[in-house]
Amino acid sequence: MSHAEKLILDGNAVAAGIKEQLEARIARLAERGITPCLATILVGGDPSSATYVRMKGNACKRLGISSIRVELPASTTTEELIAAIRKLNDDKSVHGILLQHPVPHGIDERAAFEAIAIEKDVDGVTTLGFAQNAFGFADYPSCTPAAIMAILAHYKLPIRGRHAVVIGRSPILGKPVSAMLLNADATVTTCHSRTEDLASIVRLADIVVAAVGKPKFVQGDWIKPGAVVLDAGYNPGNVGDVDYEACMANASAITPVPAGVGPVTIATLLKHTVDAAEKFGG
Amino acid sequence: MSHAEKLILDGNAVAAGIKEQLEARIARLAERGITPCLATILVGGDPSSATYVRMKGNACKRLGISSIRVELPASTTTEELIAAIRKLNDDKSVHGILLQHPVPHGIDERAAFEAIAIEKDVDGVTTLGFAQNAFGFADYPSCTPAAIMAILAHYKLPIRGRHAVVIGRSPILGKPVSAMLLNADATVTTCHSRTEDLASIVRLADIVVAAVGKPKFVQGDWIKPGAVVLDAGYNPGNVGDVDYEACMANASAITPVPAGVGPVTIATLLKHTVDAAEKFGG
Repeated sequence: MSHAEKLILDGNAVAAGIKEQLEARIARLAERGITPCLATILVGGDPSSATYVRMKGNACKRLGISSIRVELPASTTTEELIAAIRKLNDDKSVHGILLQHPVPHGIDERAAFEAIAIEKDVDGVTTLGFAQNAFGFADYPSCTPAAIMAILAHYKLPIRGRHAVVIGRSPILGKPVSAMLLNADATVTTCHSRTEDLASIVRLADIVVAAVGKPKFVQGDWIKPGAVVLDAGYNPGNVGDVDYEACMANASAITPVPAGVGPVTIATLLKHTVDAAEKFGG
Repeated sequence: MSHAEKLILDGNAVAAGIKEQLEARIARLAERGITPCLATILVGGDPSSATYVRMKGNACKRLGISSIRVELPASTTTEELIAAIRKLNDDKSVHGILLQHPVPHGIDERAAFEAIAIEKDVDGVTTLGFAQNAFGFADYPSCTPAAIMAILAHYKLPIRGRHAVVIGRSPILGKPVSAMLLNADATVTTCHSRTEDLASIVRLADIVVAAVGKPKFVQGDWIKPGAVVLDAGYNPGNVGDVDYEACMANASAITPVPAGVGPVTIATLLKHTVDAAEKFGG
């Protein structure tokens, strides 16, 4: 089968659809004198994290969402970070708060996430936000998992009754995307570094989600013919967690990297910020 | 293979071990003038629920834990139930609160569960308690899932790297036990009513957890030879969710019903109540 017969899941197209719906909502908010505002917090000088935060800020700007960038040195303590978050919680002009993951070693990231007010937790990182998502009633599920669901919905790829295999179990990606797929009636297997015979388990999947953070980790011969492959990885050199060319040979549909899950994640973050502005904007 | 060569996972033995450890702790609390106290709430006249609540009360009594039984009519509104829960939240003599599931139709059970103060949520039913469990730092994971983990631990049955298949996805059983097995490094598949070809998925399992609420639902030929079978079901007529005799033919270890998961669930509830009394007793 040639590449032309495969469905390339175009994240830019999905993101454009999400953003288009936001424009009218942002205009209506403007009539009420409200500008949605996302606050991003970057701790330390990690260049990839700085790039992500800049991309998010630029995406806000293009859509007429204001953004506040809080940059803190790598020497920041957990207490100082929490104080900065609380200040944003109390700032009525801020509708969403994003703490860029990961924070430097020595900071208690979980404690920092927990400090984010639930009504501003637009990336679903608090335990409460996670559980509301797992129970199917979250306002703001984590953005990357929500992006994966949005891609499946955009392309009308069936989920109910299908076997989804998620590789990765992080609190902001593997666990919430497993929960969302389960709530969408998939049978869900969650795999991780301790999984034995991973290849044979991935071979069972109708839907594969790679969320492992290792470049080209998922091999072509792990993919059942006709499976849908979603690559949530983004490694140095614009490489995903999936061996794209090799997996495409078996997949019926696949997300590329870049221009797959990434842009939809950012569009979802913007959507959640607009949602929050509509709810709590004034 | 005859039954004699199979490991029958004796819930009464596991429960006895848990209770034995509690006795000394309850004695030490008594020296501080503290009696652990569990409040149970029963809404409506469902006979099975009444039996469960009575069993829990009796188990408290035998161990020197006091218990308060709140019984409300089936006509109780959500608001009235929440008011009753808040009263128990405010009562410093009460250390744990158990709202017997299910409540009558017409009551918003989720709203009622949410009203339980997290420090008294000894059955892990709040969203926050669920998420803390999913992230691996809950004080009080739901009692039946915790009981299943206690049985595996008691018999030193390995979990890491094993494939666990959970049948059921309820917020108080299937979802939290899936999370606990995942945190114990199992590869976890969660199945449910929409799962296609359930038998072939269960056949992959090293560990099977039946949490589906249908008598004798899990068939003998679904069990991979050597698998461990845990039956969290308890249906009218003392029948579990597993066809016990048929599954035993293939299983290496299996919980009976009764005297399997049930008594360990109650012992876990008592343990959580003592934990809470030690933390907040005075």
